[in-house]
Amino acid sequence: MNAVTQNKPATRVVIFGGTHGNEMSGVSLVKHWLQDPSELHRVTFAAEPFLANPLAVEHCVRYIDTDLNRSFSQELLSACSSEGDPYEVKRAREIYKKFGAKESYDFVFDLHNTTSNMGSTLLLCKADDYLALHLANYLQCNCVDYSFPCNVYLVDVEERNNVYLQNIGKHSLSLELGPQPQGVTRADVLARMRELVNCSLDFLDLYNQGKEFPSFEMDIYRVTSRVDFPRDVDGEIEGFIHKELQDRDYHPLKPGDPIFQTLTGDEQSFDGEKVIYPTFINEAAYYEKKVAFIATEKVHQVVPALRVQC
Amino acid sequence: MNAVTQNKPATRVVIFGGTHGNEMSGVSLVKHWLQDPSELHRVTFAAEPFLANPLAVEHCVRYIDTDLNRSFSQELLSACSSEGDPYEVKRAREIYKKFGAKESYDFVFDLHNTTSNMGSTLLLCKADDYLALHLANYLQCNCVDYSFPCNVYLVDVEERNNVYLQNIGKHSLSLELGPQPQGVTRADVLARMRELVNCSLDFLDLYNQGKEFPSFEMDIYRVTSRVDFPRDVDGEIEGFIHKELQDRDYHPLKPGDPIFQTLTGDEQSFDGEKVIYPTFINEAAYYEKKVAFIATEKVHQVVPALRVQC
Repeated sequence: MNAVTQNKPATRVVIFGGTHGNEMSGVSLVKHWLQDPSELHRVTFAAEPFLANPLAVEHCVRYIDTDLNRSFSQELLSACSSEGDPYEVKRAREIYKKFGAKESYDFVFDLHNTTSNMGSTLLLCKADDYLALHLANYLQCNCVDYSFPCNVYLVDVEERNNVYLQNIGKHSLSLELGPQPQGVTRADVLARMRELVNCSLDFLDLYNQGKEFPSFEMDIYRVTSRVDFPRDVDGEIEGFIHKELQDRDYHPLKPGDPIFQTLTGDEQSFDGEKVIYPTFINEAAYYEKKVAFIATEKVHQVVPALRVQC
Repeated sequence: MNAVTQNKPATRVVIFGGTHGNEMSGVSLVKHWLQDPSELHRVTFAAEPFLANPLAVEHCVRYIDTDLNRSFSQELLSACSSEGDPYEVKRAREIYKKFGAKESYDFVFDLHNTTSNMGSTLLLCKADDYLALHLANYLQCNCVDYSFPCNVYLVDVEERNNVYLQNIGKHSLSLELGPQPQGVTRADVLARMRELVNCSLDFLDLYNQGKEFPSFEMDIYRVTSRVDFPRDVDGEIEGFIHKELQDRDYHPLKPGDPIFQTLTGDEQSFDGEKVIYPTFINEAAYYEKKVAFIATEKVHQVVPALRVQC
């Protein structure tokens, strides 16, 4: 691990907000930066703010026809377009054409909120995106806030199955800040997201200027499965997140620990064989996706040193 | 104040949930009670559960066409119906016909959630609804939970201008429990609402059985005005709830205290002349109503003793 990874400079940088129209921190920040982008300027680059789903923002809903942040599959992006395509599929193609196609942007940020107690979640889609991992490490070390601690989160899907917006860039990070209700702008969450974005741009600027970042080790929460609510024969939810699991995102859940409770007093326990780390517990937007929480495992990763390729 | 108010028995009791389809405590409880209403049975009556806006519940939205809980004006209820009426206006007429018209129900409960830190808010629409005030006092004394304290809240509008569902009954109380994001069922909020409903039914049962409830004094938060967000020339929100005001529902706000902050670092202070008590601070559903918070004054009320009229 003495080798130094060399990556190209990251000078084409985009910051998406409003990918989900009712996640207000990113919506508010990007709207502000579109009026005055000076805060996004650094010595080596100027990041571009971009409102990903303006119609959903206007209506203050997650999406109009379908989830934009599940619309970036190669299949959808490369299919022949037609008038009847969902709004978000059309929008995904526009965004891909501008930021992802032939000349992918170097770094893509995507700003999200969650109703879950996820603090400052730094979400990556590739385990070998060393630039993003170094950025995450930099945030963990230099952007500390005990109310919104930074956890590194990996949704490790094969590139051809990747449906997320952030994946259109060479490197990427989504910020998932919570808890915050949909449609609400909380000042504390807004300030925290702004601080994380600014600190991220500082990191990229240092990197572009040739600073070498040493090797380090980190814990990463890697998605292993999605767990649905208990349902009755008609598919109706009949058990809710147990009060002892609520708000315990990133805390270890042991076999036998309660996970669901019903209105008739029944409880359901976790029947896995080893400890997991539940995340996105009781996220409002995941009810329709039949996800009560997302199980992760904690993996330890060694990340090699990094400097820019001259 | 030695007189004893005498009211008729309250034996026709209805409990509405899902008046707003994404306020999940009432939705979940009423769905459960529709399957098994035994919990709502008392010696002197059996309360009826009723899902007020089933289509909004199905889509997990506040409403389909218009806010059901603003659709109970005499004007709307008595107007000639037409095919093109909004879904909720049609629904309001159906509900009024069943529970409110000639033979009004004796007591109407309406179960709501809020994204604001409103604890267990006991919302009345009439300052002289002594039965509801005694019920509120009973809950304050007998249903204590420091995580969700009971505050009595008065939206004191003239009957002919009253647009709220609860107003169709002879007596009424809305429960507003929070904070809870829209579309999420939190076990703690659900349990608290269930406890409050059960305690309320116990009170009505005692009342119906002839128990006399002595005179008492209480503080009531009475709505005085609605305060909008600061907006730019295009009507866009340009200031958010100040971090020092967030979650401070029912706390005194003094002249000069900060209420809004902008992304450019400006702050706006409260320019009133006396202390107010802000409520529904940063409620998600009120952004579209142009309400950042609702100002109340604390009034002290003496409530005469009460017993049932034989």
